[in-house]
Amino acid sequence: MTAKRINLNKNERLDDLQNGAFVIQRTDAFCFGIDAVLLAHFPEIRNRDKVLDMGCGCGVIPVIMSTVNKEAEFTGIEIQKDQADTAKRNVELNGLDERVRIIEGDIKDAVSIFGNASFSLITCNPPYMKKGEGKVSPVEAVAVAKHEVKITLSEIISTAAKLLKEKGRFALIHRPSRLPEIMALLKENRLEPKRLRMIHPYADKEASMVMIESVLGGGSFMKAEPPLTVYDGNGEYTEEILKIYGMQEKEK
Amino acid sequence: MTAKRINLNKNERLDDLQNGAFVIQRTDAFCFGIDAVLLAHFPEIRNRDKVLDMGCGCGVIPVIMSTVNKEAEFTGIEIQKDQADTAKRNVELNGLDERVRIIEGDIKDAVSIFGNASFSLITCNPPYMKKGEGKVSPVEAVAVAKHEVKITLSEIISTAAKLLKEKGRFALIHRPSRLPEIMALLKENRLEPKRLRMIHPYADKEASMVMIESVLGGGSFMKAEPPLTVYDGNGEYTEEILKIYGMQEKEK
Repeated sequence: MTAKRINLNKNERLDDLQNGAFVIQRTDAFCFGIDAVLLAHFPEIRNRDKVLDMGCGCGVIPVIMSTVNKEAEFTGIEIQKDQADTAKRNVELNGLDERVRIIEGDIKDAVSIFGNASFSLITCNPPYMKKGEGKVSPVEAVAVAKHEVKITLSEIISTAAKLLKEKGRFALIHRPSRLPEIMALLKENRLEPKRLRMIHPYADKEASMVMIESVLGGGSFMKAEPPLTVYDGNGEYTEEILKIYGMQEKEK
Repeated sequence: MTAKRINLNKNERLDDLQNGAFVIQRTDAFCFGIDAVLLAHFPEIRNRDKVLDMGCGCGVIPVIMSTVNKEAEFTGIEIQKDQADTAKRNVELNGLDERVRIIEGDIKDAVSIFGNASFSLITCNPPYMKKGEGKVSPVEAVAVAKHEVKITLSEIISTAAKLLKEKGRFALIHRPSRLPEIMALLKENRLEPKRLRMIHPYADKEASMVMIESVLGGGSFMKAEPPLTVYDGNGEYTEEILKIYGMQEKEK
């Protein structure tokens, strides 16, 4: 990164993604977690891919993906103006203006914004909790990111199916507790699950997250990949997590 | 086990289950594998359970389960006469006549044989392959056990839903490749997946099998349990597998 001057506003922080990229995050909104980083590394990104990240927040997923593959084109859509503005600054900060565009808008309008069948890969790290489930944050930006306030999982999946080209891929991260519902929704929308990866905090604990890649109009055959374990027996990050977090550039 | 005289026919072998039980298997039919043993240990068996094993083959699953819980009542149904006869001999051999019954019959007739809502727990280690998928064995007994020749997964699941009492459990082992289809079929039949466990040959390899426990009329919330790994890095059975195979009596 060049010695660009970064102007941080009050309630902002700068995160070093360890792959040559940096992102500004608003500390009064939802800050991205390990799930965003893991999802950004889950799908294979091909040179000619047109990639959409649905609900991109501060833009961390397209920013990371654009360091993994330097040929593909990336778009992020984000409903919250403050978050979309931060994402635009992150694109500029990392000199990605030519390959990453951020659209402030509602996923529900995405088909009219982008048109049917306009992407080959879609990623989404959606709110995990249904309306009425658990305590909703009084901070709207956090509530929107964590709860299905603005959009439901069913709406996200049916929109993704419309936005994808035939045989396009949809990569989703979510809670295992909702996996049966997710698989039913995917199949209803012709998105056939092809790869599944459970994420376990420790090798001997229940999965806390699951990543699923489905293919629009794909054949019915899924692989359950090796589990991704976050911490080893000593409570340290496993080698795979360290590789994802600190050595992204070597994955090109 | 008492020193009972065991008469083995030609084409038969005796397997020591290491838990005080023995089973006769026909070597010219389908011999049970690790999947049957793992499934037998997957569901919790409660003292008042009425348990059905659908397609019980030589009876290995009810025989193992009856050593894990000595109060519950077990039934096995098996369409192939030779296998059902072997299962009956295995029940007698292990002195289980009072708690395990074997019915020679077709799963498709199970509702008329047993009546609706007659079991609290159903297990099934079904044929994994669809008709027309892969090479079908010329030996009918093997073909029936491995391929959906006599019954489909959809028919098995809808029958299980009819045979279960409300809130009854259905424990299934299958290939991960068919998990999306399995989950959709379970949900269509009001069987809500509650527990899922992937089985990986090695910790860093794709899952080769998956066990799913669903509850008739259960709420929508699934746990993805820690992965079950069969071999350690040296190609030896893991501690958990050794415990299941050799120390079942200690699990009571």
